[in-house]
Amino acid sequence: MKNWINLTSKDNSLIKLVCALQSSRKARKEHNLFVLEGLRICDDAKVCEIRFDKLIISETASLKYKDAVEKFAENSDECYLVPDSIFKKISDTTSPQGIIAVASMPQKNTEIDKSGRYIALENLNDPSNLGAISRTAEALGVSGIILSGDSCDPYSPKSLRASMGTLLRMPVIVFDDFCKSIKASGLKSFACVVDKDAKSITDVCFENGSVVMIGNEANGLTDNAKSVANEQITIKMSGKAESLNAATAAAISIWEMMK
Amino acid sequence: MKNWINLTSKDNSLIKLVCALQSSRKARKEHNLFVLEGLRICDDAKVCEIRFDKLIISETASLKYKDAVEKFAENSDECYLVPDSIFKKISDTTSPQGIIAVASMPQKNTEIDKSGRYIALENLNDPSNLGAISRTAEALGVSGIILSGDSCDPYSPKSLRASMGTLLRMPVIVFDDFCKSIKASGLKSFACVVDKDAKSITDVCFENGSVVMIGNEANGLTDNAKSVANEQITIKMSGKAESLNAATAAAISIWEMMK
Repeated sequence: MKNWINLTSKDNSLIKLVCALQSSRKARKEHNLFVLEGLRICDDAKVCEIRFDKLIISETASLKYKDAVEKFAENSDECYLVPDSIFKKISDTTSPQGIIAVASMPQKNTEIDKSGRYIALENLNDPSNLGAISRTAEALGVSGIILSGDSCDPYSPKSLRASMGTLLRMPVIVFDDFCKSIKASGLKSFACVVDKDAKSITDVCFENGSVVMIGNEANGLTDNAKSVANEQITIKMSGKAESLNAATAAAISIWEMMK
Repeated sequence: MKNWINLTSKDNSLIKLVCALQSSRKARKEHNLFVLEGLRICDDAKVCEIRFDKLIISETASLKYKDAVEKFAENSDECYLVPDSIFKKISDTTSPQGIIAVASMPQKNTEIDKSGRYIALENLNDPSNLGAISRTAEALGVSGIILSGDSCDPYSPKSLRASMGTLLRMPVIVFDDFCKSIKASGLKSFACVVDKDAKSITDVCFENGSVVMIGNEANGLTDNAKSVANEQITIKMSGKAESLNAATAAAISIWEMMK
């Protein structure tokens, strides 16, 4: 049986740490820790063999999810029980399930597989988009996600939630110098642009060792990113809208690259 | 010059009406009215020649967006100025711009074009998904969206926002008896299912007079919907995830149907 520690003060240092990890990328980086919240994602993490440093459970959840909580406790170094009122303070959701784990960021392969097929995201801002793209990328068998250093954090609660846990499994490679690193990667790069004179994505014959680059939600790819790409490609639009949502553009690009 | 009315009480009946229209589909139906919130969507509505019944502007917005507000006022039967504190109460967003218009639901074409290409959504729950699908549908030139009666409301603030205004323009046809009406529509119907034995969507030759059916986020299409379809089709997945997000499945389906 696990030794459960009761936490009853919201001024406890662990409670403060979890609040910081939930809201601040800087705190996550500094501590090399992140938060897994909810039954589903804790389950996913366990399947990915991510060990929990701490498990924090609300009183209600300890009864409601007894079996799951016991399994999570087995996978955790330390276990804490907190009143529901304190759990609310550390939760990132409006209706918390009462389950939070804190874990070290997993060591993932950050080597580019030169025969892989990648999606690269430059300055992607919205964690929901990153999560959605990760889900599509995993479903369609993409080798990994390349992220520019100024993109949103794959370990933020919103990213993880939107990804349905796929971000825990997908290789995510962060390039601080995005354009230079894409160029040096050895992959054939395709810049996805809104330009009716660019080559239609349906005319591209994707081979192993490819990467499709998608830009920021509002501004698209930077000129620098476009200039390092081997080809400019576009998703032909017959309709009226100015452009597709970044997650949709990524979904269609991934589909065309992988099918 | 417009005659502006100052509203200073949160108990005013118009304030109460807007709150109801923001939060309740029933209220929208009862009054045949809906809310347009923010600069962008009010602009979109004006371009679509949607006349405003009422315009409600916060004191801050009346100064900050003076020119736009004047144009909106020209397009409105009645204009109201409210303190920022009251505007906060009627806003659906956490950082309101201070611009709300109330309008009658536009009369749109609800006839099926027998040579059109449609996307049909059965019991779609998430207004963000509906908005995203509408955006993709418009960009790629879909004839219209068919919605089952139990799907989320295209006139909810979340749907409209996620659609970037496209839901104001797209034909949206609501079928209360979804399966029967799809069958009677004269369109060739394709049920998009997760089933590796179904025909790959890449092998389908879409012609005019087609509709792709996408199901509920958690449960997919009902057996009834599958049974009325002319063909079962699937998006082949090479990866690990159980299924694609409904908006992603719709995006890939629309892409394959329209390209």
